[in-house]
Amino acid sequence: MDSISYHKKYKGKIGTELKSPINNRSDLSLAYTPGVAEVSKLLALDPKMASTLSLKSNTIAVLSDGSAVLGLGNIGAYGAIPVMEGKAALFKKFAGVDAFPICVNTQDNEEIIKLAKNIAPVFGGINLEDIEAPRCFEIERRLIKELDIPVMHDDQHGTAVVVLTALLNSLKVVDKDKSVKIVINGAGAAGTAVCDLLLEYGFKNIVICDSQGAISKHRKDLNTEKKRLVKITNINNEVGDIHQIIKNKDVFIGVSKGNLIDKNDIKNMSKDAVVFAMANPTPEIMPDEAKLGGAKVIATGRSDFNNQINNCLVFPGIFRGALDHKVKRITNKMLIQAAINLSKLVKKPTVEKIIPSPFEKGVVKAVSSAIKM
Amino acid sequence: MDSISYHKKYKGKIGTELKSPINNRSDLSLAYTPGVAEVSKLLALDPKMASTLSLKSNTIAVLSDGSAVLGLGNIGAYGAIPVMEGKAALFKKFAGVDAFPICVNTQDNEEIIKLAKNIAPVFGGINLEDIEAPRCFEIERRLIKELDIPVMHDDQHGTAVVVLTALLNSLKVVDKDKSVKIVINGAGAAGTAVCDLLLEYGFKNIVICDSQGAISKHRKDLNTEKKRLVKITNINNEVGDIHQIIKNKDVFIGVSKGNLIDKNDIKNMSKDAVVFAMANPTPEIMPDEAKLGGAKVIATGRSDFNNQINNCLVFPGIFRGALDHKVKRITNKMLIQAAINLSKLVKKPTVEKIIPSPFEKGVVKAVSSAIKM
Repeated sequence: MDSISYHKKYKGKIGTELKSPINNRSDLSLAYTPGVAEVSKLLALDPKMASTLSLKSNTIAVLSDGSAVLGLGNIGAYGAIPVMEGKAALFKKFAGVDAFPICVNTQDNEEIIKLAKNIAPVFGGINLEDIEAPRCFEIERRLIKELDIPVMHDDQHGTAVVVLTALLNSLKVVDKDKSVKIVINGAGAAGTAVCDLLLEYGFKNIVICDSQGAISKHRKDLNTEKKRLVKITNINNEVGDIHQIIKNKDVFIGVSKGNLIDKNDIKNMSKDAVVFAMANPTPEIMPDEAKLGGAKVIATGRSDFNNQINNCLVFPGIFRGALDHKVKRITNKMLIQAAINLSKLVKKPTVEKIIPSPFEKGVVKAVSSAIKM
Repeated sequence: MDSISYHKKYKGKIGTELKSPINNRSDLSLAYTPGVAEVSKLLALDPKMASTLSLKSNTIAVLSDGSAVLGLGNIGAYGAIPVMEGKAALFKKFAGVDAFPICVNTQDNEEIIKLAKNIAPVFGGINLEDIEAPRCFEIERRLIKELDIPVMHDDQHGTAVVVLTALLNSLKVVDKDKSVKIVINGAGAAGTAVCDLLLEYGFKNIVICDSQGAISKHRKDLNTEKKRLVKITNINNEVGDIHQIIKNKDVFIGVSKGNLIDKNDIKNMSKDAVVFAMANPTPEIMPDEAKLGGAKVIATGRSDFNNQINNCLVFPGIFRGALDHKVKRITNKMLIQAAINLSKLVKKPTVEKIIPSPFEKGVVKAVSSAIKM
């Protein structure tokens, strides 16, 4: 079956279910009128009670404006639906979280922020998704500040956790440590967050490239976010495009676009190179080609190769943990612990297996147990 | 168990469920990446396909600003959650409709309209709920005009259908016809819509009262909506308060507030009076008292007396029908047919039973079959 037939057959992927019985007039008077009036009065007086007496206890929004959907780019709210509904389904499947897709028909930041705040009452958290950089940074920052429920942009932080997980195990395979030289290609939502989390973990030698090459203090074309990155990366002030920067690096992390580098670039890397080519659906370099170049550990974002680095290992557990532990704010410290826990699920990392499968037992627990105060 | 314990035990009333299998890597590649990209591209090109390939096929929003919740008044978004979640549960229970509560933290009409339009992509319809009059009229009118999915304010039209249903069967019990003299007490969302639907059905002699008495051309304090009502009701230009207007009426329809009239008012009505005292939780007159006054048919909004006139008989079927028959606009003609169908489910109406129970078989079908072009 192809994906379109699959969606047509089931008319989508999620619906609602009853959590409480409504089988007779007595149930009806508890769940609905007249009994519900007492619960309404209570929540009106004390909104915090919504977290124990309503769907807010276990429900999060998966909110997107469709401006950066998968590798498809800005395809808008309708194009975003299948992805957000898919995430909602994975939230339920893997972590028992009730997630509902909110695909908004606007790409105005203030309108999105206001909308998210206005619909927040029924939600115990907001997973922002597929919103383009740099707009995503402002939306996330503001919502974290202005709401009292956890808000996380998964393209940033979910990706960062799963990359750190994969990197920790890759370094075990190649027997290297935090002193590795890393190049991140792509300075959007994912690249920026990956960079921040790796730095916070303790990696020191990171150069991040965008389409114009290495982000360095010589660049005159940097936006606010990239100016911030200049200050914390590229300690040797390297300049040049990705083909120059990748030379002698131990680790390549691609969160950019397909077919960007070839085997000669890999040959220029250090011995036992680690290559994460995560552009979707076409990686920065195909695994076969990377192998020809001598890469030791190779991972992509795709399910049809070994070592799929996919957020779905992470996001269900993050919000499961936030809901269970009543976490208002998800911190980098929690995310690093999640990556460490997740990496340990692979007892003996090998070239073929640096990361668990989302269907493995313990994945959600490894992540969720880290998301607590 | 009381209602608060019930809500605490189940942590609310609704969650999500998977409609499609996600049991292995192959399912994952169809429901999520990479397969989902094809579906996203399709919906970006042709948003109408969302109705067959996504949750939009069977999902509606239950949207409230909490400004007129039950008889509790303006208790805001948090107070509204238990009621909207309850409606969502009833949608699923009775009609298999996936409904999600959107309780908005604003009471600004333009903000609500913009928000509803912005979140509309994932919804196949919007059930507006518990929004105060006259704001509800503008919101409903605008959303019907500006969206291509069905939008209905249930406090208006759901109530109107269930009242018409009850009235049709009551008139069979008392052997009267469309020439009955009717007084509606309450000129808010419900009263206005009941009045409009009864007129459209063919009742001609209706006087509608608000807290200042009969709405008549002598009144100088009428808002736009009530000025419209003056032109289509009160053919004998009656003036006075409810105690004066109720005299010699055949039918009293109360959608106002508790303990407003007593047995002496009922004694002043015509023989075999029909009394619908639907204020919640306290009716305009208690059934016992109405009986003492000589009322023949008595109904309330409560589940603990005979003849409960409750919207939950109606709203699940209306959206079931709209989704099944791809109805973009719900008309009064459809609503009248729904009331006729629903009334016929009671084969032999009696004083004790003028209306079916929501748990009776055929209720949803009676309504949904009427909601079609």
